[in-house]
Amino acid sequence: MNTDQEKLNMSANRLEALGDGIFSVAMTILVIELRIPLVKENSFRALLHGLYEVRQELFCYFISFIVLGIMWFGHRMVFEYISRTNRYFIFLGVLFYMIVCLVPFSTRFLAANTLQWYAILMYGLNLSGCNLTLYAQWTYGIKRKTLHARILPDEVRKEARRLFLISPIMYAIAIIFSFFFPWISIGIYFFTPILYLLPNKIDKYLP
Amino acid sequence: MNTDQEKLNMSANRLEALGDGIFSVAMTILVIELRIPLVKENSFRALLHGLYEVRQELFCYFISFIVLGIMWFGHRMVFEYISRTNRYFIFLGVLFYMIVCLVPFSTRFLAANTLQWYAILMYGLNLSGCNLTLYAQWTYGIKRKTLHARILPDEVRKEARRLFLISPIMYAIAIIFSFFFPWISIGIYFFTPILYLLPNKIDKYLP
Amino acid sequence: MNTDQEKLNMSANRLEALGDGIFSVAMTILVIELRIPLVKENSFRALLHGLYEVRQELFCYFISFIVLGIMWFGHRMVFEYISRTNRYFIFLGVLFYMIVCLVPFSTRFLAANTLQWYAILMYGLNLSGCNLTLYAQWTYGIKRKTLHARILPDEVRKEARRLFLISPIMYAIAIIFSFFFPWISIGIYFFTPILYLLPNKIDKYLP
Amino acid sequence: MNTDQEKLNMSANRLEALGDGIFSVAMTILVIELRIPLVKENSFRALLHGLYEVRQELFCYFISFIVLGIMWFGHRMVFEYISRTNRYFIFLGVLFYMIVCLVPFSTRFLAANTLQWYAILMYGLNLSGCNLTLYAQWTYGIKRKTLHARILPDEVRKEARRLFLISPIMYAIAIIFSFFFPWISIGIYFFTPILYLLPNKIDKYLP
Repeated sequence: MNTDQEKLNMSANRLEALGDGIFSVAMTILVIELRIPLVKENSFRALLHGLYEVRQELFCYFISFIVLGIMWFGHRMVFEYISRTNRYFIFLGVLFYMIVCLVPFSTRFLAANTLQWYAILMYGLNLSGCNLTLYAQWTYGIKRKTLHARILPDEVRKEARRLFLISPIMYAIAIIFSFFFPWISIGIYFFTPILYLLPNKIDKYLP
Repeated sequence: MNTDQEKLNMSANRLEALGDGIFSVAMTILVIELRIPLVKENSFRALLHGLYEVRQELFCYFISFIVLGIMWFGHRMVFEYISRTNRYFIFLGVLFYMIVCLVPFSTRFLAANTLQWYAILMYGLNLSGCNLTLYAQWTYGIKRKTLHARILPDEVRKEARRLFLISPIMYAIAIIFSFFFPWISIGIYFFTPILYLLPNKIDKYLP
Repeated sequence: MNTDQEKLNMSANRLEALGDGIFSVAMTILVIELRIPLVKENSFRALLHGLYEVRQELFCYFISFIVLGIMWFGHRMVFEYISRTNRYFIFLGVLFYMIVCLVPFSTRFLAANTLQWYAILMYGLNLSGCNLTLYAQWTYGIKRKTLHARILPDEVRKEARRLFLISPIMYAIAIIFSFFFPWISIGIYFFTPILYLLPNKIDKYLP
Repeated sequence: MNTDQEKLNMSANRLEALGDGIFSVAMTILVIELRIPLVKENSFRALLHGLYEVRQELFCYFISFIVLGIMWFGHRMVFEYISRTNRYFIFLGVLFYMIVCLVPFSTRFLAANTLQWYAILMYGLNLSGCNLTLYAQWTYGIKRKTLHARILPDEVRKEARRLFLISPIMYAIAIIFSFFFPWISIGIYFFTPILYLLPNKIDKYLP
């Protein structure tokens, strides 16, 4: 009854395209929120002052853009191992995108309340939520043999888990610090993306 | 006169790409509308209060995102069976996208008037309109043999019809309830997407 | 010196992807401009009144969406015959996209001044500009043999010219009427897209 | 341990898709910022006056759109020679996109302060930043043999360097002039894109 010819292909390409679209819009609309600096008189000092007044927005823009870039990279890597989809995998993908789309929102909140614990908390929860839903999608995907694109070496599986969980742990630390030394939390948000630039065990599988 | 070499290919890929783009923008701009919570003093209570004040917007954001995600999935499934297009199929697609793009608009309207029958009415009409135009596109597509990608089993055709029509029916019920118990309408909007997560007869054709 | 191996492929896919992205954003941001209706009291009459107050915006939204949809279709058809690009073809494409991206702007202008000749003029010039730049791109493309994807039958060439030029002519008529009977201009803007739904001589080349 | 089967493909397609998405959103949101002209009375003179009042915004819109179009073309050319990616190449790509996404921001700043040296400075720095990060990505890419799509002739390498560096040099000149004759700076911003329309040595590799 259910012959091979009737089986659907369900290539993951479409989900990737939706994701690429969502990431590109989310990254670009970060900039819509940026207020332009107000330069009150014709001097270099006034320009610096104007830029100083929007420093929090610019800073949050940079961090969020880089974080989304790294998250996009993670999302992209998932699809090196997964080439087909089913209903549950797509649903987990939609959940992930939903949390990703909130990043411009919590970025705006952080920019408006930079050194407040509650903004640091919301931002950290949002970014951790992205990582954890993507990790859930990945975990589901690698369990379903029919979705696989290629063999997943054990080494990659372990390293991927480490890379998925490193951010939520860092962000949890940032949230704890936010009650005492909020500058440290902001520093953690700044430096966590850099951890993903260090060499890791997946590199040798890349070109 | 009209040889095979002159026949156009008209692959559906481009229409899918336009659709993926439209869905990703529509999903992402939902968040542009979100006001950030106003936290009036440095306490956990004030944060909760700030979040409470934007609860309707956040709630509508979540529902609309999930609904659009499911609608995207339906739209994606259509193109598992349709691989080529013609003018009428594309026109029905544009109609569908036009209704989809109104979702951020009616979401904003619902967020501003959450328990009012007229907002529930407009939102329900919009979502039903999405389903019905997609159903029209699907119905046209499966009738035109030249557009087909693969054989459409009878079982899938029937199940697809059920899945296309279940939402408009639920939303009609929500609209009726809105005049008496608007909370029930909101509940229906919340639970209808979940119906699409239950196992269905198309699952066995998926990987 | 310039061997075949060094020749670039320059597939048109990337330009199409940029175009699909631009169309999907331009179509979706039309809705960002829409004000939600203000319903002043709990009655059906108040809802109708609220909708009546935003009727111009909704109407312009519908027209512009359909017009962009048809323009997307034209743009899509160009790439059935053109499969490779060069610098001039891409430059003409960027010009076309630049005019397309102004459509949300002139739509907003028309919505704010619906029956004023100057809004009708700007809107008509914008839409005509889209058609004429796309026509320029098409004309350049079909002249450069190295960009071709397939043979272009004479019948298609002539019909394409007719379809490209029909809108600017209609819009010119609309602009003339705008000084005397602006309702007729609005009617022309409404009915012109419908002309593209009538059967034409390219249909037989489609699936 | 690390067999060929376990090696990842890491096709550059996904990064291109992200880039195409980002460019299409960045180009389209330029128009969101445009204020519609205010036409105070029913006369041709009033229309011209209304347009005159938004001339700076329109002018900056045109320049930025064309500049982004040319930058997209450069970005597109990179991927004619690079077909695979790794972590560093993607990171440089994210940096490039981050600077590109700031263009609507510095365009808005220039539109609000057209003849001020500080706006000309910020705009020039932003555009130069785009060119230089793309150049960095290109330089990294052509050094890593494993990422290559095809042979890169020496002539193309040199011409590409010239084309990458011509803009930053022009923009540096514009910034210097901004302190004395800001109109000349604006003229340079207007004419620099035109330099990219002149015939160059890469043309003969294109179709």
